[in-house]
Amino acid sequence: MIRYRLAIAYDGTHYGGWQVQKNSLTIQEVLQKTLSKLLNQPIRIAGAGRTDAGVHALEQIAHFEVPEHIDQKKLFAGLFGCLPKDIRVLRIEEVPSSFHARYSAKQKTYQYRINPTGLVDPFERLYELTVFERFDIEPILEAIPLLLGKHDFTTFAHMATQGAASKDAVRDLYRIELIPKKEKLWIEFEGNGFLYKMVRNLVGLLLKVGSHKVSPLDIPTLLKAKDRRKAPQTAPAHALFLKKIEYGTLLKCP
Amino acid sequence: MIRYRLAIAYDGTHYGGWQVQKNSLTIQEVLQKTLSKLLNQPIRIAGAGRTDAGVHALEQIAHFEVPEHIDQKKLFAGLFGCLPKDIRVLRIEEVPSSFHARYSAKQKTYQYRINPTGLVDPFERLYELTVFERFDIEPILEAIPLLLGKHDFTTFAHMATQGAASKDAVRDLYRIELIPKKEKLWIEFEGNGFLYKMVRNLVGLLLKVGSHKVSPLDIPTLLKAKDRRKAPQTAPAHALFLKKIEYGTLLKCP
Repeated sequence: MIRYRLAIAYDGTHYGGWQVQKNSLTIQEVLQKTLSKLLNQPIRIAGAGRTDAGVHALEQIAHFEVPEHIDQKKLFAGLFGCLPKDIRVLRIEEVPSSFHARYSAKQKTYQYRINPTGLVDPFERLYELTVFERFDIEPILEAIPLLLGKHDFTTFAHMATQGAASKDAVRDLYRIELIPKKEKLWIEFEGNGFLYKMVRNLVGLLLKVGSHKVSPLDIPTLLKAKDRRKAPQTAPAHALFLKKIEYGTLLKCP
Repeated sequence: MIRYRLAIAYDGTHYGGWQVQKNSLTIQEVLQKTLSKLLNQPIRIAGAGRTDAGVHALEQIAHFEVPEHIDQKKLFAGLFGCLPKDIRVLRIEEVPSSFHARYSAKQKTYQYRINPTGLVDPFERLYELTVFERFDIEPILEAIPLLLGKHDFTTFAHMATQGAASKDAVRDLYRIELIPKKEKLWIEFEGNGFLYKMVRNLVGLLLKVGSHKVSPLDIPTLLKAKDRRKAPQTAPAHALFLKKIEYGTLLKCP
């Protein structure tokens, strides 16, 4: 079997997330159907991570296998023509069969876009969270170092997934960066991996920190509690972007 | 009567343009209905210019009159809450009754957003034109000076409006600027006024110039012809933004 890797950008607004499900159209489903038609065989793709309903991707990674080499240029042109305009394949590459979009991932970056002006921007309304409360970045800058590094992030994992062995909830957060974009603020999260809803839950925390509802000093206690119910609510999906997935140098020397 | 001026931003994607019409919802209609409800009286607004179906505005200007002073902060908050998120009122100001959104306008700026990569950007697909042909800026840079200044722009006016006295078709184009935005290109047009569809028709021309289908040297002949049928087709609406309308210093010393 020959394995191919896809880099995909999508506007998640009109989809029920990445993963195939019964009651709504998903990115994975659209890609699988289009690939299956174009390659004239049933194709299953595996994505690097399941983005939630409404979450976007600047670069999601997925892989699939076929028994024979494909004409990559032709497939690229076919995907270009047949996919809806809110799902775009950016690159197609052959990869060694040891490559797995999810398990080979070394590092992920997410971006969360905040509009702290309290005025909805009609052109960015689908891609950023407008904050109507007071919002200061100083307490957020205090909070960031308390979240960085290796922690058990159970408190910031999805409720329904809690109760699993806690060693599974340890993640290493390398970077949380505030990126000012004129009057807007983007927050980037880089780590070796993220629990389900972890980025949105961390953003929910930082929003409360920014509005002085939660003190940065509470963060160590929150982490120690390993209890989702102690932390602020999940931030909305539509302002979250999966930005990049890194796989190290594995691919460059197959 | 007290006159108020509104600055409005809108995403034109889901509207049949600015001006009230029978068969589709328009920006003017939504604004009038919302203002009428909030102020509890029938309100008619006059816009600075009629943007076409699908055209956006970073800042459109309109005015309306009411018999008594209104509470501007309250109205602003009401509009904020009641307007759909793709129509946003940016400012409300009282203006002298000599002010007219359309007739007092001294200068307008439009922006047209081009993605020359040939790859649809899923996040900007509603706001830019993806060009699939060869597209070079050198011939466009040659074309620009030939369009600037006072000309009869009948060749670039809407077909159906032709035949009117030609002195009405003279406009003064102050600036056509190419603004590189990473791999994208925005074109800004600034002038004392624009004929119906003129910006989109000029963009249609520049696209053909950029793909070497029309030579910049043909432009004087095209202008002289005063015949829309001689010029390239109109560029799509969805990549056009009304950026700014200027009124001189009149408003600052009422």
